[in-house]
Amino acid sequence: MKAEIISVGTELLLGQIVDTNSAFLARELASLGIELYHLTTVGDNPQRLESALKDALGRADLVITSGGLGPTEDDLTKETVAKCLGLPLVFHEPSWERIVARFAKMGRSVTGNNKKQAFVPKGGKALENHWGTAPGVLVETGDKQVYCLPGPPSELEPMFRAQVLPLLAKQGEGVIRSRILHLVGIGESQAAEKLGTLLTEQTNPTIAPLAMEGELVLRLTAGAKSAEEAGALLARLEEEIRGVLAPYIYGTDDETLASVVVGALRERGETLATAESCTGGLVANLITDIPGSSEVFARGFVTYSNDAKIELLGVPKDLIDKEGAVSPEVAKLMAEGAKARAGSNWGIGISGIAGPGGGSAEKPVGLVYLALAGEEETEVHKLNWPGGRLAVKKRTAIFALDLLRRQLLRQE
Amino acid sequence: MKAEIISVGTELLLGQIVDTNSAFLARELASLGIELYHLTTVGDNPQRLESALKDALGRADLVITSGGLGPTEDDLTKETVAKCLGLPLVFHEPSWERIVARFAKMGRSVTGNNKKQAFVPKGGKALENHWGTAPGVLVETGDKQVYCLPGPPSELEPMFRAQVLPLLAKQGEGVIRSRILHLVGIGESQAAEKLGTLLTEQTNPTIAPLAMEGELVLRLTAGAKSAEEAGALLARLEEEIRGVLAPYIYGTDDETLASVVVGALRERGETLATAESCTGGLVANLITDIPGSSEVFARGFVTYSNDAKIELLGVPKDLIDKEGAVSPEVAKLMAEGAKARAGSNWGIGISGIAGPGGGSAEKPVGLVYLALAGEEETEVHKLNWPGGRLAVKKRTAIFALDLLRRQLLRQE
Repeated sequence: MKAEIISVGTELLLGQIVDTNSAFLARELASLGIELYHLTTVGDNPQRLESALKDALGRADLVITSGGLGPTEDDLTKETVAKCLGLPLVFHEPSWERIVARFAKMGRSVTGNNKKQAFVPKGGKALENHWGTAPGVLVETGDKQVYCLPGPPSELEPMFRAQVLPLLAKQGEGVIRSRILHLVGIGESQAAEKLGTLLTEQTNPTIAPLAMEGELVLRLTAGAKSAEEAGALLARLEEEIRGVLAPYIYGTDDETLASVVVGALRERGETLATAESCTGGLVANLITDIPGSSEVFARGFVTYSNDAKIELLGVPKDLIDKEGAVSPEVAKLMAEGAKARAGSNWGIGISGIAGPGGGSAEKPVGLVYLALAGEEETEVHKLNWPGGRLAVKKRTAIFALDLLRRQLLRQE
Repeated sequence: MKAEIISVGTELLLGQIVDTNSAFLARELASLGIELYHLTTVGDNPQRLESALKDALGRADLVITSGGLGPTEDDLTKETVAKCLGLPLVFHEPSWERIVARFAKMGRSVTGNNKKQAFVPKGGKALENHWGTAPGVLVETGDKQVYCLPGPPSELEPMFRAQVLPLLAKQGEGVIRSRILHLVGIGESQAAEKLGTLLTEQTNPTIAPLAMEGELVLRLTAGAKSAEEAGALLARLEEEIRGVLAPYIYGTDDETLASVVVGALRERGETLATAESCTGGLVANLITDIPGSSEVFARGFVTYSNDAKIELLGVPKDLIDKEGAVSPEVAKLMAEGAKARAGSNWGIGISGIAGPGGGSAEKPVGLVYLALAGEEETEVHKLNWPGGRLAVKKRTAIFALDLLRRQLLRQE
């Protein structure tokens, strides 16, 4: 089966929001073995939406639209799909009742413009939306299917899983499976060279490298008759890649550096404390995004000011006066202070200049000292990042998590 | 002038990454008054890329591609553009020299596959890339222009600003200007009803409402002969909207809740400290994303464990034993403890259950107590969020920042 996705919304064409729905839907379709060759975005314009729908229906069996189901005048997706397929819109009483009940529960009263959301193309199936107001729609004509889903990702994603996935899962033929390898500390061309013919001559599974900020991703994709067969192909290739790139690979699929670190700490029953200056809580935030992190994350200190470094972490005032807050000595004592005060096994200390202000010739924006205090010793790294404030924060946090990951591996 | 954007990369069709480049380019084109009606995404497939290029060149004067300029075999954008326009590829010595120099600076040696990146379609102009390896390309034929830019956003964005923007800025006719109003605490249909005919009958500027997680955005868009004229149209409409929705509007354009809060604190010379349990440093991280936040952010405590709440914030152990860590009393003392220990003007205390584990019938996942301690009193709010761990963290952080914003406004 071939699918296309059409995202609808002038806000997308003006760049006001980023289209995360297409990525979500694409991932789901791939896991079902449904081929996707085109993503299209048009604005809240019925002519261009109609033309995009016709193109998509000409190339694919399945079209999924996102957006344009809201209560306001510019929301026209259902109307345009109905017109394109030559169907009238009919009022759907159960959808209207659900909308009224939802508003009542939130203590709001339904407004006149919500009524529009309870109409569906004749013969279409309303898809219940338990996460928002607008119901979705499935319309089938001949051998083509059109699904219309709401734009907000917090509605589209659970609705797809609950209402659309079960219907599509019955229709797939063969499967496509992907495996993601996450790398840190190596660039794209260097990885490509190390992989050599493995990269260039591989056809099923394929290997696609992808550079991200501070990280590198290798996507392995296999097509096969069954999930088992695809899995075996991927496992064999992964082993070959690990033979060449093992030290750089920190995780697979949905793993993040933080989830790998939290997992490794949990396994050993060890704990971590952080003392962050220029990253301002980002390391703590990444770690606490991971379920179960409360078992391993002892405490976090965000110590922008010198006073906070002195009082909360026990960094001597003299040392700050002499070396400056951004120095290897202060980062070291921050890490050790966090570890000692939290009574944890590990302490991370970060002091640097994230910018845009605060830099000097001697200590430019992007200079960061990062320390990791362990059971026996503390290692300190001097980092020099390009880019703006958020890039400096992010790259530093990645480096910190990877450093701890490597230490945990070394001690296994 | 009409433009189209084509994003190239199988990783986009498999949903492995989210296409932020299109949103960035769309925003830039809008600010230049260049119309954009279609965004298209295709994979690393020369046939479908060629077909997408032909469609786009048939509808638009300007086509911008992103992606497919990397060193590996599946990077085919330049090759396909050259073929589509009937041009051979020629080696560009200065680009090659820059690539070699870049690798040398990073202490890496250039690999054979990088050579491919120094080719450009004959007659095309190589666009320097100071942020990565792959140079971009501009090819002009007749009255059509094709720009090929690299895929990584950290390269595409600065490259667009430095190399493409100056060339396009000379060619615009008229301008399109947008103004964003950010709202919190009101839903889309409720806002639409309050706006009434202002929303439904407005044509230039237009008003487009857009629901985001925990926030609502109104995009005002005006077309005019000059930036001044467009600005005046937008200012008039904004005033009318503020007449109806002022209490909900927290900011405009690039402002975030955090930037508004940091700005208001700086203006008054006041400081903030945070004590976060279930948000795990997210509030501190959002605040420290803002340049200049070091002046107002006294310190942040991430206190997951009871011990941390007791030792760092002075919450009595008896109270935690009696009321539980997730209770209004503990949140209140966390806020007051953070404020007192940091010597700040404001303290935020957050204790809740972000999930997925840790919930009970009495205290379910999503229950959060949030306290704001000010000069004279501390207010405590009981919140009940739907959604998963990250949604609970995010909505709580938004609520906390908005609460402080409203208090700061009230005291003006």
